[in-house]
Amino acid sequence: MTDALFEQHKNTLNEALKAIKSREFYSAYPEVPSGKIYGQDAKADGQKAFENRLNKDFSLNQPGTVGDVGAERSPYGFALNVKYPKVDVDVLFGAMNEAMASWRDAGIAVRTGICLEILKRLNERSFELGFSVMHTSGQGFVMAFQAGGPHAQDRGLEAVAYAYRAMRETDDKTLWVKPQGKHQPLSVEKTYRVAPKGLSLAIGCATFPTWNSYPGIFASLMCGNPVVVKPHPNAILPLAITVEVAQQVLREQGFAPHLVALLADEPEQPIAQTVALRDEVKLIDFTGSNAFGTWLEQNARQARVYSEKAGVNAIVIDSCDNLKAVVNNLVFSLCLYSGQMCTTPQNLFIPQSGITTADGHVSFDDVAKALAEGIEKFLSDPARAAEVLGCIQSPDTLARIERARALGEVVLDSKAYGNEVFEQAKVYSPILIKADAQNEQVWMQEQFGPIAFLIATQDTAHSLALAKMATQSKGAITWGVYSTDEAVLSQAENAALDACVALSCNLTQGLFVNQSAAFSDFHGTGGNPAASASLTDGAFIAGRFSMVQSRRHSQ
Amino acid sequence: MTDALFEQHKNTLNEALKAIKSREFYSAYPEVPSGKIYGQDAKADGQKAFENRLNKDFSLNQPGTVGDVGAERSPYGFALNVKYPKVDVDVLFGAMNEAMASWRDAGIAVRTGICLEILKRLNERSFELGFSVMHTSGQGFVMAFQAGGPHAQDRGLEAVAYAYRAMRETDDKTLWVKPQGKHQPLSVEKTYRVAPKGLSLAIGCATFPTWNSYPGIFASLMCGNPVVVKPHPNAILPLAITVEVAQQVLREQGFAPHLVALLADEPEQPIAQTVALRDEVKLIDFTGSNAFGTWLEQNARQARVYSEKAGVNAIVIDSCDNLKAVVNNLVFSLCLYSGQMCTTPQNLFIPQSGITTADGHVSFDDVAKALAEGIEKFLSDPARAAEVLGCIQSPDTLARIERARALGEVVLDSKAYGNEVFEQAKVYSPILIKADAQNEQVWMQEQFGPIAFLIATQDTAHSLALAKMATQSKGAITWGVYSTDEAVLSQAENAALDACVALSCNLTQGLFVNQSAAFSDFHGTGGNPAASASLTDGAFIAGRFSMVQSRRHSQ
Repeated sequence: MTDALFEQHKNTLNEALKAIKSREFYSAYPEVPSGKIYGQDAKADGQKAFENRLNKDFSLNQPGTVGDVGAERSPYGFALNVKYPKVDVDVLFGAMNEAMASWRDAGIAVRTGICLEILKRLNERSFELGFSVMHTSGQGFVMAFQAGGPHAQDRGLEAVAYAYRAMRETDDKTLWVKPQGKHQPLSVEKTYRVAPKGLSLAIGCATFPTWNSYPGIFASLMCGNPVVVKPHPNAILPLAITVEVAQQVLREQGFAPHLVALLADEPEQPIAQTVALRDEVKLIDFTGSNAFGTWLEQNARQARVYSEKAGVNAIVIDSCDNLKAVVNNLVFSLCLYSGQMCTTPQNLFIPQSGITTADGHVSFDDVAKALAEGIEKFLSDPARAAEVLGCIQSPDTLARIERARALGEVVLDSKAYGNEVFEQAKVYSPILIKADAQNEQVWMQEQFGPIAFLIATQDTAHSLALAKMATQSKGAITWGVYSTDEAVLSQAENAALDACVALSCNLTQGLFVNQSAAFSDFHGTGGNPAASASLTDGAFIAGRFSMVQSRRHSQ
Repeated sequence: MTDALFEQHKNTLNEALKAIKSREFYSAYPEVPSGKIYGQDAKADGQKAFENRLNKDFSLNQPGTVGDVGAERSPYGFALNVKYPKVDVDVLFGAMNEAMASWRDAGIAVRTGICLEILKRLNERSFELGFSVMHTSGQGFVMAFQAGGPHAQDRGLEAVAYAYRAMRETDDKTLWVKPQGKHQPLSVEKTYRVAPKGLSLAIGCATFPTWNSYPGIFASLMCGNPVVVKPHPNAILPLAITVEVAQQVLREQGFAPHLVALLADEPEQPIAQTVALRDEVKLIDFTGSNAFGTWLEQNARQARVYSEKAGVNAIVIDSCDNLKAVVNNLVFSLCLYSGQMCTTPQNLFIPQSGITTADGHVSFDDVAKALAEGIEKFLSDPARAAEVLGCIQSPDTLARIERARALGEVVLDSKAYGNEVFEQAKVYSPILIKADAQNEQVWMQEQFGPIAFLIATQDTAHSLALAKMATQSKGAITWGVYSTDEAVLSQAENAALDACVALSCNLTQGLFVNQSAAFSDFHGTGGNPAASASLTDGAFIAGRFSMVQSRRHSQ
């Protein structure tokens, strides 16, 4: 147990620390799945590694194994048939709690070095992780590689930097000398140590198993808490690989490998609800449905809950220079991963009288038509369609598309697309529906998946008012606004501030409203019902440790 | 609305920022109630100002007044008969929420300057505040001046510094430039703004009305939240003066004075429970009983609750050089304000076989006797007894002393003392009781007031195990340990870390276990049931604001 890993990775940490303050571009892990960066054979090796996982037992270094469990199916149409340890929770949690003191006492630098080494090794496994994310979430490969690999690792590093900064806000010792008038000053030695809160439970989601889980996992681990990872039952593999890597590094460094452990389950026998209420669990990170997130917040009272749920994201179109550029940008956001992102726009508010563009006035219906045609054109290249849309992760989402057809006038219907490699992949394009502004029970419900509403409003002020009302009551993670009028942009900024939601203005180039970059973009604010936490801010870290002091008179 | 106040007080802020990291001694507001510092007539003027408050209406600058309310009695034996605005909560909260946007939009520097100016003016009112705290809490004057005046102001400044640092952790704008290989880099302007959470409710206590409330009040105000102050019904005056000062500064600076407002009530018609559940209330700071604190945490689900409740503080005596010095130190802690501090020791664990001292072995009974005699001797000077003991704040505490006599063998009984100035003051010395280690239902209940248990244990390891068990299940804010053995001190430090409680080792000089200095000592850890928050750490601030961003392509 030395600081060697800390020294080795210090530059990465320092760069990350600079970036979380300056919010300038930074990435520690290259996002391009290129052989030049990751090695000539990296992709082929990663694919092989993934395939070698299939139809096998996935063994881990943790106590309390009492059988096996796992029933993942690739949304591309086959069973993974990987079997993970089935856990006796009493045994595992007992062992994890026993291991906590040595992890705590190792100190900030040792824990930081180990977390950074885990991230480095995860980065080396990015292709294997990419294929695993692809075949659990249904993302296209490039997206799965990026979001599941380097982008997730960057989010993990960001949490490491935030945790490091938070723990270092207090010096670890001081000499406190209080003047006493004519008397000798009072001289006291004080030490300050980080005390973890206890067992941390990370509940993963099916669509972004690593990206949404790494912040909580690394934040908790950094602060001295053992972490039990409970993946979504259909997206276990990427997190099992993550746990395997963490356990390897921990063991090499002389710690109990089960300071990070896997708790897998199957859709038919979910265990999150039972586990989340256990006394040992002091921290919970959750990404998933509003229903379960709210249940956790209401019921897991022994724990602090950091939740990222869902919301009704909004686009407000007021005016623009180049409608085509606006449409192209929005089309990509609507199509990417078939809208199965918590950042995908759902409600597009457009004045019923239409909008002003540099090429003249465009009616509401013509904006709608431009969007519909834009989607069809963008998806006309089948390879691009398959790669960008990925496939539908859950049968629930397919059912939601089906039901959506009855919710209003269908401007563009969802269509099934093929995938040349995986014949059984369920690939569907977005459905666009006209919704009445008054019909709140339609558009104020989250419709997770490739479902978007075009909502005619009285004017842009009305659009902003509706977006704000929906966000304050149902939550949102992203807003986009298009306007050539600075006054309107400023109104949008104030409305977004009232609603505590991240705003993107006039995106027409290579940046998209549903993208959120580590070290610069806050994902969720914790200020509206979509999320009780933000990835990553100070509040995401602060509850994960206490400062405990000891003092004595100085001799 | 300018940054003038910020510039004016910048040095104070910078000193405070340095101190909260280095934990070195710092105090912005002199604790000595001296005419040389505060002005020749400051004490007489302060007393006059206090007396001028009595038997009058206390008017404030806030909407929604519908009558008057107030039934405070000085524990020194007279009715204050001050009448405060009785509030229509709908009207007041509506107006406070309306004022929030301008306070938010003023920005960090303006809010900081105003908070620092409020603290400066409160400092100038320290004598008036001292008399007000004395005649609501029952503290002796010097303690009331210090704890209610400068020490409370230091705790307020500490919260200002923590909030300032937390909000400044993110730059307010950036240019994010992402390389795109052979293409033009993607260039995005981003801005980040602080969004308040909403109305903040500060629920004060009767014993330290200002000291325990200032951290939450200033932390919330700094982060842009309007603050409604709900004092304990018997300790309104010190917080009413505080609100008055805050309102004056806010109005002078062009803000709605009711960004800080008073919500007073009477013991017969308490309103905290109703108000705490209102939707507008997003933050609650609470100091008081475990019962109400836990009720708030369980029921005020729309708010984030920062609570400081109570616990069973422990002293572990293992061995010492100079028993007399140990006794003198403990006697002062047991007597100060008749043990009505959440930091007063309750349980003194001593090996049944006695302890080793530099003067030889001392039996358990002789340690008990030394403590009893020490208390009697210390209180034998009537003026000192009256000043140090203050008086009993609540009839509940008197009843608790009465009941305590039946809880075990009384080693030293509580005695009534006189107060030469206030004949009706209820002045009582501590009661010392032998409690059986097995008799947990006795000593594991908090006995707020001048009640301490001497508990014979098998050995020091047993003492530490009992202290840890009690703290983990019932909470504690302070531990003290006495040992000449570094190995024992180290065991105590580890046990305190496990129990998340602040430890004081071998205090024999002018530092006492129940004292906690702003900028250096954390009061509460948030890691055991005594408190969900720490005064002050990052977690105390983090939940009071969100960061909200806006981004657009750079031209």
